[in-house]
Amino acid sequence: MIDHRLIAFEAVLQEGSFERAARRLALTQSAISQRVKLLEAELGQVLLVRSKPVRPTPAGRRLLPYLAQLRLMESEARRALAPRQAHGPLRLAVGVNADSLATWFIGAVAEVVKEEDLVLDCVVDDQDHTHALLADGEVLGCVSTRPDPIRGCAAERLGVMPYLCAGSPEFRARWFPHGLTRSALAKAPAIVFGRHDDMHDAFLRRHFGLDAGQYPHHVVPSSEGFMAFAVAGLGYGFIPEVQAREHLARGELVDLTPEREDVVLYWHHWQVQSPVMARLAKAIGEAAGRALTG
Amino acid sequence: MIDHRLIAFEAVLQEGSFERAARRLALTQSAISQRVKLLEAELGQVLLVRSKPVRPTPAGRRLLPYLAQLRLMESEARRALAPRQAHGPLRLAVGVNADSLATWFIGAVAEVVKEEDLVLDCVVDDQDHTHALLADGEVLGCVSTRPDPIRGCAAERLGVMPYLCAGSPEFRARWFPHGLTRSALAKAPAIVFGRHDDMHDAFLRRHFGLDAGQYPHHVVPSSEGFMAFAVAGLGYGFIPEVQAREHLARGELVDLTPEREDVVLYWHHWQVQSPVMARLAKAIGEAAGRALTG
Repeated sequence: MIDHRLIAFEAVLQEGSFERAARRLALTQSAISQRVKLLEAELGQVLLVRSKPVRPTPAGRRLLPYLAQLRLMESEARRALAPRQAHGPLRLAVGVNADSLATWFIGAVAEVVKEEDLVLDCVVDDQDHTHALLADGEVLGCVSTRPDPIRGCAAERLGVMPYLCAGSPEFRARWFPHGLTRSALAKAPAIVFGRHDDMHDAFLRRHFGLDAGQYPHHVVPSSEGFMAFAVAGLGYGFIPEVQAREHLARGELVDLTPEREDVVLYWHHWQVQSPVMARLAKAIGEAAGRALTG
Repeated sequence: MIDHRLIAFEAVLQEGSFERAARRLALTQSAISQRVKLLEAELGQVLLVRSKPVRPTPAGRRLLPYLAQLRLMESEARRALAPRQAHGPLRLAVGVNADSLATWFIGAVAEVVKEEDLVLDCVVDDQDHTHALLADGEVLGCVSTRPDPIRGCAAERLGVMPYLCAGSPEFRARWFPHGLTRSALAKAPAIVFGRHDDMHDAFLRRHFGLDAGQYPHHVVPSSEGFMAFAVAGLGYGFIPEVQAREHLARGELVDLTPEREDVVLYWHHWQVQSPVMARLAKAIGEAAGRALTG
């Protein structure tokens, strides 16, 4: 149901060459080339760089998210027209930051996933970067910290995820016998999630005037690995309050400061939404309302 | 203590240009250029592609792991010569697959990390790919499934991590009322860790003759996300036995087949090891001996 010129464009990009795209679509190479040229003429933009492999131009890249949306619309329409048994599950790619995936996100989507017979392709990235996945057409919706929607998209506020600064009691006794002081913080090993992660930087800069990188830190890009590092007494760091709660209750971790780092999360999606995406967005918004603070 | 030609080479790569490297090292651009040329002449290889940004040639890339090792050796030597207070912690980058990081790895390294005052930079990748990180000099040691060491390295067998195929009782009742049959497996949503992950493919191919991609699957690149998907009844998949155990005991998950997928893990490191790396390797080997099966 998708324009055959778009299909040719997509196949060339996926296969990396006009020749392989022609083979996959069982067409001649000149037919493929002709279709892409027609599309370029209609849009008044060159879409492909004829390199090896073929790459999209900036204009071609901007076309990708629309193509992903068209594919989804097509799948949903086919499902709506066919009896339930005849179609497989619907595949949806969503961007989500690791801490949301480890905490509230799965509970939010579980019911819709089952009822709508979906399979999710979760693309995990730092919360400040999931946004780019949407612009590239890699995902159809994403959890992000950015409030401003990209062109053609909308952003809905999900709520606040508070992070607290925690470490094991033994760690506190060794590194912070006099509390969180500037000189102790310059030496105590921190735990950060990724090389992109700047919550810790921001905290130390704002409250203690320490610059980024002026403190030793473990890099542990795994939500449960991060927690295990903290519980094992190897470092201290910012953990979602909801995830830290049971460890605090068991005395495995202690809260090192009354300060909280608040992360405001948004759900970004294309303005024109398919019915399934709209339902998913609604479920995510409602679950976030329960799991996150206002 | 590192050859000044190597330092120039490294700075150009890190900064992306001769000009910025010169600024960082407070040298003239021609001095930097001269040093790199001398290194290239001595090794008889072109090491840098003079593009924007400057990139390493294949030969230049092969030099990177040696540079990482030299840096580590230098740091360790400085620590050995200086009083404890005078130096900061030693930074070690290690490659580890997500399931090891979520299970046995942290317990294995915790003591050495504390005693040697290390900060770890954990680079998480699929177990079949951590190997490449070592070759690129991104890490100094890694947990990998590959038994064959790369040139200049050694590989030590750590043990076997058995995976079982699990899902929630409700999921089993809905999708596998007659057990794991070929037709049920072609429809039931699986959970796979990443787009690279081929344990599930291998299992379905070997036992049921199903080809890769012939079954719907969620992609959940997070160890605890994977588990939460299974517990929520959204799919079934292969989970490390050690991680599944408590969920099986609580009845949240059931074991779907007596089959196990065994993953043999190896610790890869450079043959010439610094004292700290050797101690870390020993601790990892011993902990693996306890945590993994023979």
